[in-house]
Amino acid sequence: MEKIKPRTLSGFMELLPAAQMQMDRIMETIRSSYALFGYTPLDTPLIEASEILLAKGGGETEKQIYRFSKGDTDLSLRFDLTVPLAKYVALHYADLAFPFKRYQIGKVYRGERAQRGRFREFYQADVDVIGDGALDITNDAEIPAIIYTVFSRLGLKRFQIRINNRKILNGFYAMQGLAEKSGDIMRTVDKLEKIGADGVRAILVDDLHLTAEQANAILSFTNIHGTNDEVLAALSGYRGKNAVFDEGLDELGTVAKYLGGFGVPAENFAVDLTIARGLDYYTGTVYETTLLDHPEIGSVCSGGRYDNLAEYYTERQLPGVGISIGLTRLFYVLGEQGMLNSEVPTAPADALILPMTDDLSAAVSLATELRASGLRTQLYTEAKKFKAKMNYADKLGVPFVLFLGEDEINAGVVTCKNMKTGEQEKLSPADAGARIAAFVEGQKGTASILDI
Amino acid sequence: MEKIKPRTLSGFMELLPAAQMQMDRIMETIRSSYALFGYTPLDTPLIEASEILLAKGGGETEKQIYRFSKGDTDLSLRFDLTVPLAKYVALHYADLAFPFKRYQIGKVYRGERAQRGRFREFYQADVDVIGDGALDITNDAEIPAIIYTVFSRLGLKRFQIRINNRKILNGFYAMQGLAEKSGDIMRTVDKLEKIGADGVRAILVDDLHLTAEQANAILSFTNIHGTNDEVLAALSGYRGKNAVFDEGLDELGTVAKYLGGFGVPAENFAVDLTIARGLDYYTGTVYETTLLDHPEIGSVCSGGRYDNLAEYYTERQLPGVGISIGLTRLFYVLGEQGMLNSEVPTAPADALILPMTDDLSAAVSLATELRASGLRTQLYTEAKKFKAKMNYADKLGVPFVLFLGEDEINAGVVTCKNMKTGEQEKLSPADAGARIAAFVEGQKGTASILDI
Repeated sequence: MEKIKPRTLSGFMELLPAAQMQMDRIMETIRSSYALFGYTPLDTPLIEASEILLAKGGGETEKQIYRFSKGDTDLSLRFDLTVPLAKYVALHYADLAFPFKRYQIGKVYRGERAQRGRFREFYQADVDVIGDGALDITNDAEIPAIIYTVFSRLGLKRFQIRINNRKILNGFYAMQGLAEKSGDIMRTVDKLEKIGADGVRAILVDDLHLTAEQANAILSFTNIHGTNDEVLAALSGYRGKNAVFDEGLDELGTVAKYLGGFGVPAENFAVDLTIARGLDYYTGTVYETTLLDHPEIGSVCSGGRYDNLAEYYTERQLPGVGISIGLTRLFYVLGEQGMLNSEVPTAPADALILPMTDDLSAAVSLATELRASGLRTQLYTEAKKFKAKMNYADKLGVPFVLFLGEDEINAGVVTCKNMKTGEQEKLSPADAGARIAAFVEGQKGTASILDI
Repeated sequence: MEKIKPRTLSGFMELLPAAQMQMDRIMETIRSSYALFGYTPLDTPLIEASEILLAKGGGETEKQIYRFSKGDTDLSLRFDLTVPLAKYVALHYADLAFPFKRYQIGKVYRGERAQRGRFREFYQADVDVIGDGALDITNDAEIPAIIYTVFSRLGLKRFQIRINNRKILNGFYAMQGLAEKSGDIMRTVDKLEKIGADGVRAILVDDLHLTAEQANAILSFTNIHGTNDEVLAALSGYRGKNAVFDEGLDELGTVAKYLGGFGVPAENFAVDLTIARGLDYYTGTVYETTLLDHPEIGSVCSGGRYDNLAEYYTERQLPGVGISIGLTRLFYVLGEQGMLNSEVPTAPADALILPMTDDLSAAVSLATELRASGLRTQLYTEAKKFKAKMNYADKLGVPFVLFLGEDEINAGVVTCKNMKTGEQEKLSPADAGARIAAFVEGQKGTASILDI
């Protein structure tokens, strides 16, 4: 028979078992962190009617979308988890309690140009809270606590959640008589790290036709830095000139005020006036998260406040605030940077039983006994040479191998081998189980997922 | 702005939060059960090149497939998890340890005609073991133990794993000189429950042109029943007439021999000669699982042994055995039958904090303290009337509400309300946390997911 060459599409991550274990552990850390804050898990379809997903229309995203027909229906694969959330909240409004707090970890699809480290199928891990009509600003202070919980549980220490409020930027530009150019200015200031102050000034003056004075005012405003208190104090100097600015400053002040109480250490967040995020979407607080020792990675968790989540589907005002972790890219980058801790166990089993007899009854019973005590147990029953069996154990990385031959069965024991130390000892099945359980218990939480 | 009517595609399950919690719990039970047997989790792309997914080609499945182009690439959504597994094993052969034991829980897509209880996007929960060249029959006996673990952990008691071996059927038909009609005969016998013995006989004689004698032989063979030992003893009477039959009987005997050792109680499995499964795929052991009080549901977990998993992609002989749970349909049917236990907690939080002061610092700190102790905690900060806040707590179903007003803050206590009993008590934050933690701990495992 003619064979078809097996392949996985480029831009689609497919992991080997050990890497998959690491990925699953990261996902579980995110999931349990989101749940700790009382958010409920959601799972929406990967396919939606195109009219739903493209309600907003236009832009780069539309070009990247996976769109196709089935029968008469025009379908699309979701390209983020926010649009499906908007649809969900509009559709199920009557059945939900508000503020509606949900998290969702799921795959999304974007047909980006294939290149190293860019994915067409990737996980997003989103957490959002949606208000009905209004949403208290305290929620904006809780979000960084969720980010902090996720990344510190992953084992990271040197990361910083950078916070800004777009009302402050919009208000400040309005003070300069530049309200209409807000969007263009933000886009330009966003390039500060890339092209420097002179580059930004050139664009502001040459392309956006700002006066030198206006450009300087913007650059010196953006340059405000220091401790969070110092930045907030400096911003207070602009108070009273623009209502939107004042509102933004109040909001930012409230977020900064409660962050400590929410458990975020001062060194893990910074008020940063250079953060602006995407243009049309966010309306207040915005977040980025950077790894201090790997600034080249860019933001690993971003988000913000939006005034009107579901405006394309409902007349109701549904403001929200949330963040998203681009999990697949994060996992890829962590791997590239050598930050995945290889000490974290990735074996699918805690114990591997190697029977040395033809009749497997004793081995089968031992496997059942170990499993009943909660130990993940594999039973190896293939007719292979001893060396092949041990190779299998090594390849899996199981911490313990249990040998069961005639002698052991007659003596009511098993030979328990610690694969790391090489130690080998005859033990009763119960003692062997207890030893393995103690090892598994001791392993928990000793090695952090990330190796920093 | 013109609004687009929010909708979810028909045939796509989208659950409300409480139902989603139930679904997640079932999924977690399946996942942990599969893991207990030492199987490793996999996650493969939902999209594959069409040439990969359609390598086998033809049949009903191909018509149902979601197939589309992106750029020059002919793509398809996976319609099961077996074909992607075959590709995975062929592609990553050199990096895998064999026997390769993996589980995968993921969505698959089939464009079936939309009707109640039929899904176009649905979860399958698969577990398979793949051998390299050969795979010991003991693996076939372990699979029912996995099924038993899943369903008993879900709270089911009255279910039966029905086992057969297609070599026995093929061998028996060959004894009757009907080897070439095996497939047609199996398809006909498969209808026994639906159309009865006379209906089957009519098709065998009229359509398949069997003699009355042959038809009677087949019907009386299929009618063999009794305890497992009785059935095996009756089958022994046919030994020595056909090599394939004898091989199948040996295999079935071994599976039956070890099942008890693997922890499957005798009442939960039955050797059943009427089980045949799909025709081309399985080559040995076959499984179906039925709920004894709901036979109308059909099999909730099926599978079997296949000789050659990846024959379309590689010359290597890779035999396997495994099962699949059609999770979305199972969840739907359990809901329809009223079998989802409403006593199982579905609240997203263990505690809801209702602050009664303008300054939220104390409430924020309390939330952080409870979360640090592992309690899922929501902080409600919206400016709503007391009644609206309590409605929110009710709607969520949180077991505890913590009130924090000036009096409480000054006295260093919180008012802790048990929402079920209505009891309300002033406690130190630590005591309140301990009380809630004790309740959460006590809740674990008391209510089974399914209500039988």
